[in-house]
Amino acid sequence: MISSEEINDFLALEFPQINGEYEILELSSENITIFNRISSKHLRPGGTVSGPSMFALADVAFYIAILANIGTNKSVLTTSCNIDFLRKPLQINLIAKPQIIKLGKSLIVGDVFIYSEGMNEPVSRANFTYSYN
Amino acid sequence: MISSEEINDFLALEFPQINGEYEILELSSENITIFNRISSKHLRPGGTVSGPSMFALADVAFYIAILANIGTNKSVLTTSCNIDFLRKPLQINLIAKPQIIKLGKSLIVGDVFIYSEGMNEPVSRANFTYSYN
Amino acid sequence: MISSEEINDFLALEFPQINGEYEILELSSENITIFNRISSKHLRPGGTVSGPSMFALADVAFYIAILANIGTNKSVLTTSCNIDFLRKPLQINLIAKPQIIKLGKSLIVGDVFIYSEGMNEPVSRANFTYSYN
Amino acid sequence: MISSEEINDFLALEFPQINGEYEILELSSENITIFNRISSKHLRPGGTVSGPSMFALADVAFYIAILANIGTNKSVLTTSCNIDFLRKPLQINLIAKPQIIKLGKSLIVGDVFIYSEGMNEPVSRANFTYSYN
Repeated sequence: MISSEEINDFLALEFPQINGEYEILELSSENITIFNRISSKHLRPGGTVSGPSMFALADVAFYIAILANIGTNKSVLTTSCNIDFLRKPLQINLIAKPQIIKLGKSLIVGDVFIYSEGMNEPVSRANFTYSYN
Repeated sequence: MISSEEINDFLALEFPQINGEYEILELSSENITIFNRISSKHLRPGGTVSGPSMFALADVAFYIAILANIGTNKSVLTTSCNIDFLRKPLQINLIAKPQIIKLGKSLIVGDVFIYSEGMNEPVSRANFTYSYN
Repeated sequence: MISSEEINDFLALEFPQINGEYEILELSSENITIFNRISSKHLRPGGTVSGPSMFALADVAFYIAILANIGTNKSVLTTSCNIDFLRKPLQINLIAKPQIIKLGKSLIVGDVFIYSEGMNEPVSRANFTYSYN
Repeated sequence: MISSEEINDFLALEFPQINGEYEILELSSENITIFNRISSKHLRPGGTVSGPSMFALADVAFYIAILANIGTNKSVLTTSCNIDFLRKPLQINLIAKPQIIKLGKSLIVGDVFIYSEGMNEPVSRANFTYSYN
């Protein structure tokens, strides 16, 4: 498993447009936790975080889980995502917890649960399939 | 069905952060076509449009289809989305075509197909369920 | 494209347990229509067709669309399905209309719409991803 | 939470067509485990369990989790399901573990993981949304 420093360096280089928005809080074979700093661009009227912001966080979090497992030198693509919006998030930072449930020869399947920081009940849950080679 | 002008006014007021990014090209009971101006912030390494950008377009396009059908004075929420990324989009503007397949008492279900401008084969296809009251 | 006779022969041989339940009504490069004879085993209390029966029909219909496109000598597997149950089906026979929207090198993606026979509005809509080699 | 005996009685009465196929092994507020006796009708060529059989098990397992939480006197409907087929199941009995992640006022969302009996890695994972009133 590669380190969070290696992943941070890789993301800063490859995805400069998201730099500073996401942070790896925890990265082990057991747990991965990603932090998303929420600012005005993520918000919707009514003081909630927009669906596309949660999708973007889920996608980054799952991508980081993949990098941690297969390294940064493969070509990786999102194949599909199913996302359920469960509860209205508060207007505060978000936490994402990705988990891989199948690392196949060409497909990777897993889940991401997203929480308003400090809350126990998820605000959304996403299932991803990525392909790689 | 309300007009594209009314919807544009509503979106400019309620979602100033997306102003100028999306444009309603066509809005009738038969066809809705939404244009998404692609700029550097939507791109990924390799010269393709990012998954979250396509999700955001699909979500806006389906939301516009709902506004056209039920008006702008209801409370509307994305409940779930299933999105398939089918082909790598070119580094050009995108077109979205939303379609409602069930307008229920509390749930609205439908599809959005997304195309690179001028192409016949979709780059992604999303299914949405929205709730409203 | 192979003929409906070839597909019927193949299904009767490989899937004897579904023999007689499904029938290919139409098979061309434009349209595929599959008929599902509904009997007591497909029903639920309240006189409706069960969700698993509709899933089974959608899966068979999409599989037939794949056979028609790639022949019967490949190994084909369902990878994922997203199904929306839109309206309560009547206690009558069902019709399924599968459509392939991407025939890739290893993945096939498409939709199936299911109707109560003679009705215009779909009772369910399924999206499938199959893998093959 | 109602008991597994009450649920078994309810299912035997309401769904006689599945009687004897499924068994509740464990039912507590922490864990629900459902057993599915596999016979020839569930199998596919190549000695594997069919996708529709796994869908049917997932649907029953999630329905039992709902009955345990809201009782047997509500009207309950499957709204949508997203199912990933992860690994080829062995030709042996299956175990399903449903979990509710949101019990809302009108929608219930959750997951079901399915295992070949005695195995640690899931063969499929389904996400359900049910509506009730």
